[in-house]
Amino acid sequence: MYTIRGGKNMNLAYKILNNHLQKGELVAGTPIAIKIDQTLTQDSTGTMAYLQLEAMNVGHVAVEKAVAYIDHNMLQTGFENMDDHEFIRSVAKKHGITFSRPGNGVCHQLQLENFSKPGKTLVGSDSHTPTCGAMGMVAIGAGGLDVAVAMATGTYYLSCPSVLQVNLTGKRKPFVSAKDVILKVLQELSVKGGVNKIVEYTGEGIKDLSLTERATICNMGAELGATTSVFPTDERTLDYLKQQGRAEDYVEMSADEDATYDERLDIDLSTLEPMVAKPHSPDAVVSATELEGMPINQVVIGSCTNSSLNDMMHAAAILKGHRVNDNVSLVIAPGSSSILAMLSENGALADMIHAGARILECGCGPCIGMGQAPLSKGVSLRTINRNFKGRSGTNDASVYLVSPEVAALSAIKGCFSSDFSDYEALEEVPMTPFIKNPNYFINDYDPNHEVYMGPNIKPVPRGEKLTDSYTGKMVLKVGDNISTDHIVPSDSKLLPYRSNVPHLAKFSFYKVDPDFYKRAVANNGGFIVGGDNYGQGSSREHAALVPNYLKIKAVVALSFARIHRSNLINNGILPLVIKKEDYDFFNDQDSFTFHNLKESVEDNKEVVISNDTTGKTINATLTLSKREKVMIEYGGLLNAIKEIGGDF
Amino acid sequence: MYTIRGGKNMNLAYKILNNHLQKGELVAGTPIAIKIDQTLTQDSTGTMAYLQLEAMNVGHVAVEKAVAYIDHNMLQTGFENMDDHEFIRSVAKKHGITFSRPGNGVCHQLQLENFSKPGKTLVGSDSHTPTCGAMGMVAIGAGGLDVAVAMATGTYYLSCPSVLQVNLTGKRKPFVSAKDVILKVLQELSVKGGVNKIVEYTGEGIKDLSLTERATICNMGAELGATTSVFPTDERTLDYLKQQGRAEDYVEMSADEDATYDERLDIDLSTLEPMVAKPHSPDAVVSATELEGMPINQVVIGSCTNSSLNDMMHAAAILKGHRVNDNVSLVIAPGSSSILAMLSENGALADMIHAGARILECGCGPCIGMGQAPLSKGVSLRTINRNFKGRSGTNDASVYLVSPEVAALSAIKGCFSSDFSDYEALEEVPMTPFIKNPNYFINDYDPNHEVYMGPNIKPVPRGEKLTDSYTGKMVLKVGDNISTDHIVPSDSKLLPYRSNVPHLAKFSFYKVDPDFYKRAVANNGGFIVGGDNYGQGSSREHAALVPNYLKIKAVVALSFARIHRSNLINNGILPLVIKKEDYDFFNDQDSFTFHNLKESVEDNKEVVISNDTTGKTINATLTLSKREKVMIEYGGLLNAIKEIGGDF
Repeated sequence: MYTIRGGKNMNLAYKILNNHLQKGELVAGTPIAIKIDQTLTQDSTGTMAYLQLEAMNVGHVAVEKAVAYIDHNMLQTGFENMDDHEFIRSVAKKHGITFSRPGNGVCHQLQLENFSKPGKTLVGSDSHTPTCGAMGMVAIGAGGLDVAVAMATGTYYLSCPSVLQVNLTGKRKPFVSAKDVILKVLQELSVKGGVNKIVEYTGEGIKDLSLTERATICNMGAELGATTSVFPTDERTLDYLKQQGRAEDYVEMSADEDATYDERLDIDLSTLEPMVAKPHSPDAVVSATELEGMPINQVVIGSCTNSSLNDMMHAAAILKGHRVNDNVSLVIAPGSSSILAMLSENGALADMIHAGARILECGCGPCIGMGQAPLSKGVSLRTINRNFKGRSGTNDASVYLVSPEVAALSAIKGCFSSDFSDYEALEEVPMTPFIKNPNYFINDYDPNHEVYMGPNIKPVPRGEKLTDSYTGKMVLKVGDNISTDHIVPSDSKLLPYRSNVPHLAKFSFYKVDPDFYKRAVANNGGFIVGGDNYGQGSSREHAALVPNYLKIKAVVALSFARIHRSNLINNGILPLVIKKEDYDFFNDQDSFTFHNLKESVEDNKEVVISNDTTGKTINATLTLSKREKVMIEYGGLLNAIKEIGGDF
Repeated sequence: MYTIRGGKNMNLAYKILNNHLQKGELVAGTPIAIKIDQTLTQDSTGTMAYLQLEAMNVGHVAVEKAVAYIDHNMLQTGFENMDDHEFIRSVAKKHGITFSRPGNGVCHQLQLENFSKPGKTLVGSDSHTPTCGAMGMVAIGAGGLDVAVAMATGTYYLSCPSVLQVNLTGKRKPFVSAKDVILKVLQELSVKGGVNKIVEYTGEGIKDLSLTERATICNMGAELGATTSVFPTDERTLDYLKQQGRAEDYVEMSADEDATYDERLDIDLSTLEPMVAKPHSPDAVVSATELEGMPINQVVIGSCTNSSLNDMMHAAAILKGHRVNDNVSLVIAPGSSSILAMLSENGALADMIHAGARILECGCGPCIGMGQAPLSKGVSLRTINRNFKGRSGTNDASVYLVSPEVAALSAIKGCFSSDFSDYEALEEVPMTPFIKNPNYFINDYDPNHEVYMGPNIKPVPRGEKLTDSYTGKMVLKVGDNISTDHIVPSDSKLLPYRSNVPHLAKFSFYKVDPDFYKRAVANNGGFIVGGDNYGQGSSREHAALVPNYLKIKAVVALSFARIHRSNLINNGILPLVIKKEDYDFFNDQDSFTFHNLKESVEDNKEVVISNDTTGKTINATLTLSKREKVMIEYGGLLNAIKEIGGDF
């Protein structure tokens, strides 16, 4: 536990937090507020974030740099997508936010290339915002409303995380990729191993990793459930900033020599082999050799995890002069327009095309199920970060997570393959300067600019003030590791409706229980019971906005994923924690009452829940910060801001 | 009228037909059968064509070259697309058909590059199959079933077209494109000006047009309703074949010096200006200057009409060093993987990217509403071939058809612009050899290969044998120029269901009358009344398969588009022609009886239709070939083939 401000044994994570601390102390588990330097949004969470920003009625954003990216909803199979793009572009202009046009690439890749700076803080309405941790930043994924508040006030509120040290030693063998490093960490720590923690990388093994390789590792720290991940800066950071034409942004950042940590994991990079995360979880990790020879149907190379110039060049080098196997569809989406232009100019794109690769627009695409759904019962190898069931768009497909190198080789072979014996070791791509594409960024500011609102944009749902007791039915009971994908699916058909909560509500939990929506409406709300790690995965606050709209008053679970818990509270929904032995107390048929809520919230007392039929009771734990209490009392953050302002 | 076989005054169209004539004589309006050398399918019509081919239980295809392209359904927002791709790939292998993988580009561009040969015949299950007319071929768009029969038997049946001469003189001014030539022809002739005709281009003006420019003109001959369009071959044809590494395929083909034609249109190329087709018809053509300065939201460059290397290089040259206007989203989809690779290698792709263009996968994409739907009420400039209302995916958007040059310039300006005074005249792109991508083609043949069938593939609907009278309700009455897009919409949500007629049926005519499906089901079928040029547009036979499935027995119209009429007959649906004054005879409320059908069909007698309430009657004309009579009698071609074989 850290209680020292400006002490001598600080780890890097706490140094950066300390430099930005506005409220509280750096004591793990206690509420703090930090100054935010940068924000980012993508379009699927951004529409709602900007509706919320608009609702706050503010002027120019209060942060150094706010960027609105378009990278999720780019298929445009109906008017909704382009309407959303135009809405976001108009809000960006009104509030002095940089707008990144569709086609420019994936937000995290672009943020890293163009705006990341050592020592800065960033919150983004996307769970993979920690990617910029590679630049020595504290970069945190948050709900859209939290990002809207950060834009409006420059402040972000969170529970102070503890710090987990991952100490890297040794040097990777050829064809072992950064992806294999983070898959190893996931194998060791599991998808909940990082909850309420910052993962800080240390050790001489860091030198073996380029800046974008570190970005891959920080990116998939999200899959650990971590608050964020962070690397120190060094000459490789400087090399990258030089490549981006921003050497002046370099600041040396590292932990104190005698820094202490709450936990430690040691990884000897020289022992690693290519790894694979099997369906349907990023921590179901095995050695790639275990699957050698298994036939595959599709390969996807890209996403914010693995779409750097180096990733693309390695894939191209493996593909060059070969033919994509007849049984395989290989799709490749470079991470940014600059990377696409460079691949084009250096011949690598042609190598990919000649091999038979499909080149997709720069964007999130297949990673978020926005196109390229695999064959029925198909096997898809992907360099992306998540392989939750159904996320690919094909519910019975099996998605495996691999490195770009294994992906490219397997595409040629037509089966899982990590036998690179026919290849010479791949060199790291030289750090030649990026050719930047300023024409994709719009930097207008006009406080009087009219906001464009298409017909698909519906109001933000608002909760109701806390009552002293609540009686309702359990409308759903689910198991462990329910993800925000389960709560509000994110497939290609629903993503265009991110600014239309009433429409999304009809599909909530439909892969878990197709009757959930009807039951919630019929019962005029109610509550949900979950298992461990409820709300993991994507940061999407729609997983809380939809329950709010459906008048869900509480979620009772064994534990919560960090961002989703915040989103529930932002929406005035109680996140109640129960003991494992009380999970069976909840039974489909009955009505339950939550007693004495006002006092419980005020004093963080246990909440008594009674079964109205049997009269039996259990206790649930509530651990709300002062700020969170206010949000629950007012029925959500927007209500609270409206009544008492943002600084509470 | 031509009655001469091997005569001395033959036009080119009849020469090619004559070389392939299997049945009948070259008398316009009479039934003929021709030998088919090549077939092509795309995936959205191909799934059904191959289900029909499978139903015929044949072995290796009977044509020189059959190619199955994947270019329509490539977004893959669900399992359906990739399942269809795999189905087609498996059928291709079983029957010795070349499979062109997704990512390889648009069928017509690829057919031109790789397989087109002067003097050959081609039928394709896409209405823009006439594109290869630029190569001196008779290339005809047909329903999937006709293409399946051609693959199985090597024969295609059609009504002998008349030949319309378009005589070109002069030389275009700078920045006047091939697109402007065909827009001018459309302005002169209208969308029904080519019905039952082959448009044959002649004159010294032809020299002014490169092979791919001629392809643009032949491509949009489909919008004239023409059976096909054809150009003679010359040194420019040879240049193109050399560029494609196929000089040995060159054959000199031209009309006899004293060739005669049924009609003639003269166009002096030197008088042309950049043109625009306004919403919502390709023949609503005006000079581009009329719209100069009108603000726009989106620009789309690509499609089988304008995605050649020259088109792309011209667009890139205009974009180079400029910035896409902040108010515009510019998307570019090159026509083939070879073109994409070349644009990449020669720097043009980078020029586009640096300007801020979005690069889409090579394919049909926005042209068929498969993505890139414009803003609500948006204005979209496109280099595509059709601008029917709603086809873009945004029902209230306005789509304007323009050349790549006008599209690129307008994207920079943010408004309609054809003022190229800041630019020097663009050179034609040199005919440097294409770098070919053989890795996108699969040329396997295994007659025992197992056909892959995903869960989305449903049986082909079958009609019933003709009864002597039919009594039913008019379930729909529509006006002129109803397109197959109206009959079975082709948006991004429905295209994945092209092998699932029961699903498509639910959406038939829904933009015209949302209750059509319910009414047809409630009435257990019935008949439809249409105006002029009923069934224009896309060749999709689903516009007949769906009525067949819904038990529609007849369509009564003022006139029919050629391909759709054939598709109706293939499905056992009567295409009855009425006089203009009888259009008002049909009234929503009543039931009607079609009398004495067997005799009428047998002898092409007029069909008496009575209003069962008033007792009043009118006569409708039926002009069926011998072959068509058999199809109607058996309730469709598949039924007839099953009972009596294909050669009737």
